[in-house]
Amino acid sequence: MFDQSTLPYLLQRDTIASLSGSGMHIGDRRCYPFAKQSVRCDSVEEAAKAIRDMVTQGGGPLQVGLTAMRMLARQIAIGMQPCRYETFETSCTLLSQARPTNTTLSRTLKRFLSQLCSVYPDKVLDAKTIVEHTDRIIDVFERQFDQDYDAMSNYGSLLIQDGDRILTTCFAEHSFFLSLVKAKNAGKRIAVAVCETRPYLQGARLTAPSLVESGIVCELITDSACAHAMSVGKVNRYMTAADVVAMDGSLANKTGTLQNALCAKHFACEYHAFAMSPDSSILKATCIKNEYRDGKEVCEVRGVATTSANVKGWYPAFDIVPAELVCAIITPKGVLKPSDIARYYALHTDSPHQSGDKS
Amino acid sequence: MFDQSTLPYLLQRDTIASLSGSGMHIGDRRCYPFAKQSVRCDSVEEAAKAIRDMVTQGGGPLQVGLTAMRMLARQIAIGMQPCRYETFETSCTLLSQARPTNTTLSRTLKRFLSQLCSVYPDKVLDAKTIVEHTDRIIDVFERQFDQDYDAMSNYGSLLIQDGDRILTTCFAEHSFFLSLVKAKNAGKRIAVAVCETRPYLQGARLTAPSLVESGIVCELITDSACAHAMSVGKVNRYMTAADVVAMDGSLANKTGTLQNALCAKHFACEYHAFAMSPDSSILKATCIKNEYRDGKEVCEVRGVATTSANVKGWYPAFDIVPAELVCAIITPKGVLKPSDIARYYALHTDSPHQSGDKS
Repeated sequence: MFDQSTLPYLLQRDTIASLSGSGMHIGDRRCYPFAKQSVRCDSVEEAAKAIRDMVTQGGGPLQVGLTAMRMLARQIAIGMQPCRYETFETSCTLLSQARPTNTTLSRTLKRFLSQLCSVYPDKVLDAKTIVEHTDRIIDVFERQFDQDYDAMSNYGSLLIQDGDRILTTCFAEHSFFLSLVKAKNAGKRIAVAVCETRPYLQGARLTAPSLVESGIVCELITDSACAHAMSVGKVNRYMTAADVVAMDGSLANKTGTLQNALCAKHFACEYHAFAMSPDSSILKATCIKNEYRDGKEVCEVRGVATTSANVKGWYPAFDIVPAELVCAIITPKGVLKPSDIARYYALHTDSPHQSGDKS
Repeated sequence: MFDQSTLPYLLQRDTIASLSGSGMHIGDRRCYPFAKQSVRCDSVEEAAKAIRDMVTQGGGPLQVGLTAMRMLARQIAIGMQPCRYETFETSCTLLSQARPTNTTLSRTLKRFLSQLCSVYPDKVLDAKTIVEHTDRIIDVFERQFDQDYDAMSNYGSLLIQDGDRILTTCFAEHSFFLSLVKAKNAGKRIAVAVCETRPYLQGARLTAPSLVESGIVCELITDSACAHAMSVGKVNRYMTAADVVAMDGSLANKTGTLQNALCAKHFACEYHAFAMSPDSSILKATCIKNEYRDGKEVCEVRGVATTSANVKGWYPAFDIVPAELVCAIITPKGVLKPSDIARYYALHTDSPHQSGDKS
């Protein structure tokens, strides 16, 4: 298993979400790297709002959801919340609906509820044991995720070649960072070009500082400079996370991924996406639910206006990338061709485990 | 000829550059639309520095160069500058070298010097007549540019179809705006999606507010959302200016144009570029001199940091777009296929006029 301390600050579990008394803290990615702040949430409602408001994003909501279950168990134990299965059920629905595109959190919470049911027959909870049982279920989930990150980053680091110049979009989370660290530790010389990823600047604010922290050579480029970078050989490989992968091998990821994948194909750069659990309920690209956020988010940077007040913005939060633009998807089950995703992940198949996350 | 008052604020000649006493003002595009400021220049050196520092950009430097010649003539007339041909020659070199990619200014100043030589045989100037002769030459140039804008925007407006949803990058200047206004006045329903154009946000700050001012329906999108917009039918046409067009029909324009042109081809959107004067001295794409600006410019927005101080940026100021990605180039001589550019513009051909500008 990988050493947790090799993860940059932003990916250490406690900085994503942590319990605090009867509430929880969510690391505020909106102000990083300019401040290391967190948002305090004393209810699942507040945690769901924090996810909607982009306090955390990418793989963050999954950890927030798991921590929220631990918080809820504690609130039940001390009588702050009714000791009923419905308390969990309602909370899981609320968290699952916070953002629509990435389905990892909702699928993981569904698995949590099902395991809770098997601990408490007839859905009758016990306030005395709820913390212990909830923690045990979540501990197993977290251990499985770490194992998945480890497996995926082993695959990722093997794909990376000595001398690679890798483009990335947004903040590709654990598996991508661990892949880079493992490739570097194996003696491969690598450099990363990071798209700033407007409007939230996840590339500029989260990825680039975390790469510097991890000792990986990197440069920040505008979202408009990706084709240019490929055309002059500054980039020869493209790697991203995937918020969701459908059974036809298509995927959703942060806006910009589609045009970068198109350019990667044109300039013969391999494009690989990390995905911990393709969604067997999403059969094809057209079934992916894309989120359109408030256009106002495009009209500012860190609270500073970028245009006049009478200009309207348009903000699709994710791109749908068709399977033909993806070389392969890096999953815990291996580096899979998009056309092989259904064989490994469709419900009728024999899958060794059903974990879920944006890695 | 088009009505000057149909141009938005930013494209009215006096707001780009204007004489003021023995000096000149350059409209400061860096702070628009948040302030209508100008930078005062009392010498050609200061005007060249303003161009380097991005006070104006795109087609702006051409107008600055012409106004600087008027300023210089006035400074010679009152004895502030030596009454020598070399005064103009040195100034033209300085202005021409301010930025390397767009060659319109340097070619126009070369034509200015040549016409000055024909007014003053043996290059002997006369302080009493220098203002009159300089103004006469520049007046003719400016009239010719206006005629070219008019012709190009007639072509542009005919290309635009009722219902078109046009993507544009950066600030595509006179011919693009006049094309939209003429298309709209002809009863065509049009909408424009504007890339914000990081890092200087010319799309967000210059184009979008100017479109609103002109009554053209528009929305601001991130530079990363162009392929998405095409994939969902929000955009069906792509139009930009071109900083320079080579004889093989390739062109340079603001970074982002290459990936957008690639996506436009993929999604079957026509891509047209406006270019007042392809450069006969630039035979092919590889001969275009691309400017790489300070990477620090990528690491901020309007003076606000976007990343941590230890992150380095990389900023290619322009893209080179190969001819095969361009449907046609809109020139004063007509809407030309890239493969026809040399036939119309190479030096050996019979060209009706040799004006030059980024339109």
